[in-house]
Amino acid sequence: MRTEIATLGEFGLIEHLTDKLPVVNDSTIKGVGDDAAVIDNKDEQTLVTTDMLLEGVHFDLTYFPLKHLGYKAAMINFSDIYAMNGFPKQITVSLGISKRFSVEDIDELYSGIRTACEEHKVDIVGGDTTSSINGLVISITCIGSVKADEIVNRSGAQEGELICVSGDFGAAYAGLQLLEREKMVFQSQAREAAEKNNAVLAEEEIQPDFTGKEYLLERQLKPIARRDVIELLRKANLRPTSMIDVSDGLSGDLLHLCEDSQVGCRIYEEHIPIDYLTAVQAEQFNMNLTTFALNGGEDYELLFTLPISAHAQIAEIDGIKPIGHITKKELGSFLVTRDGQEFPIQAQGHVSGAEIANN
Amino acid sequence: MRTEIATLGEFGLIEHLTDKLPVVNDSTIKGVGDDAAVIDNKDEQTLVTTDMLLEGVHFDLTYFPLKHLGYKAAMINFSDIYAMNGFPKQITVSLGISKRFSVEDIDELYSGIRTACEEHKVDIVGGDTTSSINGLVISITCIGSVKADEIVNRSGAQEGELICVSGDFGAAYAGLQLLEREKMVFQSQAREAAEKNNAVLAEEEIQPDFTGKEYLLERQLKPIARRDVIELLRKANLRPTSMIDVSDGLSGDLLHLCEDSQVGCRIYEEHIPIDYLTAVQAEQFNMNLTTFALNGGEDYELLFTLPISAHAQIAEIDGIKPIGHITKKELGSFLVTRDGQEFPIQAQGHVSGAEIANN
Repeated sequence: MRTEIATLGEFGLIEHLTDKLPVVNDSTIKGVGDDAAVIDNKDEQTLVTTDMLLEGVHFDLTYFPLKHLGYKAAMINFSDIYAMNGFPKQITVSLGISKRFSVEDIDELYSGIRTACEEHKVDIVGGDTTSSINGLVISITCIGSVKADEIVNRSGAQEGELICVSGDFGAAYAGLQLLEREKMVFQSQAREAAEKNNAVLAEEEIQPDFTGKEYLLERQLKPIARRDVIELLRKANLRPTSMIDVSDGLSGDLLHLCEDSQVGCRIYEEHIPIDYLTAVQAEQFNMNLTTFALNGGEDYELLFTLPISAHAQIAEIDGIKPIGHITKKELGSFLVTRDGQEFPIQAQGHVSGAEIANN
Repeated sequence: MRTEIATLGEFGLIEHLTDKLPVVNDSTIKGVGDDAAVIDNKDEQTLVTTDMLLEGVHFDLTYFPLKHLGYKAAMINFSDIYAMNGFPKQITVSLGISKRFSVEDIDELYSGIRTACEEHKVDIVGGDTTSSINGLVISITCIGSVKADEIVNRSGAQEGELICVSGDFGAAYAGLQLLEREKMVFQSQAREAAEKNNAVLAEEEIQPDFTGKEYLLERQLKPIARRDVIELLRKANLRPTSMIDVSDGLSGDLLHLCEDSQVGCRIYEEHIPIDYLTAVQAEQFNMNLTTFALNGGEDYELLFTLPISAHAQIAEIDGIKPIGHITKKELGSFLVTRDGQEFPIQAQGHVSGAEIANN
């Protein structure tokens, strides 16, 4: 079934998408339906973050299901709010939609956004939908809240503190590489089949086999913002001194944190958490595993610093690992390899998403 | 001078654009530079609104200077906050930028945004910049604030109340028509000149003459959100019972307000404020002047209702005019023409921007 968006019109589409949106936060006084949403903020402080995703730059719909895309677009915004030690409460969703998309397509996209919001107790309070000439554009702004004295920013790291991370690194990038490779294989096989005049057969025969690699695909297609880590740290009474979410790659985001805190760092190659599937994939692609983990990007894990005294407590929390420590600024920022060599950490930007599209 | 954006990189560009952004609002605790901005909100309520503008759909850079575009993109968001009887305080700015644009181009765009922010005492607190494959994408989210008991929404209009508007209508649409016509003239003349092999001469010779029509162009290229009207009403101790900003055309937005308030209306053709330049232009384009004013859109004026008792006070305020009154819902929504006939008001959507691109 395919309903043309034109049959609903712009207002009709907004109504269709936002009809009966539930409200879960007390602070959401008024959601969709007026010139602006109204949010109440007692003694909390408001956090605001925004992200824009463009088709062909940040995502490729040949392998990115719309539902996952919506989920991810919301999730990467939540991740920024958690990285301030706050909780996301509301989002606005702006969509630029080309004629290629039907109402059902946009429903798929929106259902992913709604699922992400349900999981993280977030209200959709507004947005904009507009026609686009070229492809799909998604721009989400997230409002979060946090008590004034609980905010954790990027600039609080101090010499001697532990550098910790949640989760593992490089898997989302490995997943992207897998999907890109399968796309190329599919395209060349489809071309061959077409040349032999049996294009109909082709689609059925070519089924990529991702068995056993689901984790890598999930990390790329369905990243999870680490609300659980924020809650774990609070439960353990641990307050990070600085924090950032890893979207552009561990290297780049660690350098951001160090620059803003006016410090240096040493991180240890052997301590960087990497899933074995990521390692296998890096091997298959003939790529350096550490580069994969440091520069892959889109991990949406949390990178934070804690006083050295937290060491024993951290050791008991599953899924959080110390990977190094903060030094004086003059000592620079280095990766210490397994054989004890030191290499300066470099901000290559993340290698996925925008960069791939530009190369 | 043209600096390629690639010479700065994504992070460099963000730094370049947001370097030394001044902060004017006490509530802006932290602006650009962390995962999220931090906004303090004492006893006020937070308003949030967002708008997305796409090249080729909402604007045509052949006649829309980037500086004006930035100014307008910010202004249309402020307008939504004023329409809630609040004041804009912060914005986030997300840009999708294709390779066609240089750093200087984006500086121009941003300088327009900054000018709008300075005029309306708004802080730029964050955003996102990303590469775009096709054209320019601008997505702005505005955060405003208002005391809880001062919020004016679309649903408060009651039978018997006055319907009032600020400014005049149809001029922005007239300006757009002028610009579109000149573009076509220019293109056909340039084509002719090129055929005669004197393309160099052509550009110099073809200078559109907009003398005397500056007002229409300004309404299209440099709309002004009506902060002054909100301030005037407060000074006069007049609190609208319902309010909306007119972006989609007077007809459509009046119907929105009536629907949300569960009422009907009568507005009088003779009372709709129209500038004489708009009238001249409608005549020249052989278009019905009232259609121009009712459906043109992009006026960014305020449409609001007031108790009938406010009539005398409103008469004394320059630039605010009653155009009709609210009726029972069952009586429908009608335009009363100069000769006393009644025509149902229809939501055609606005005829400019997106619709033109789709036609």
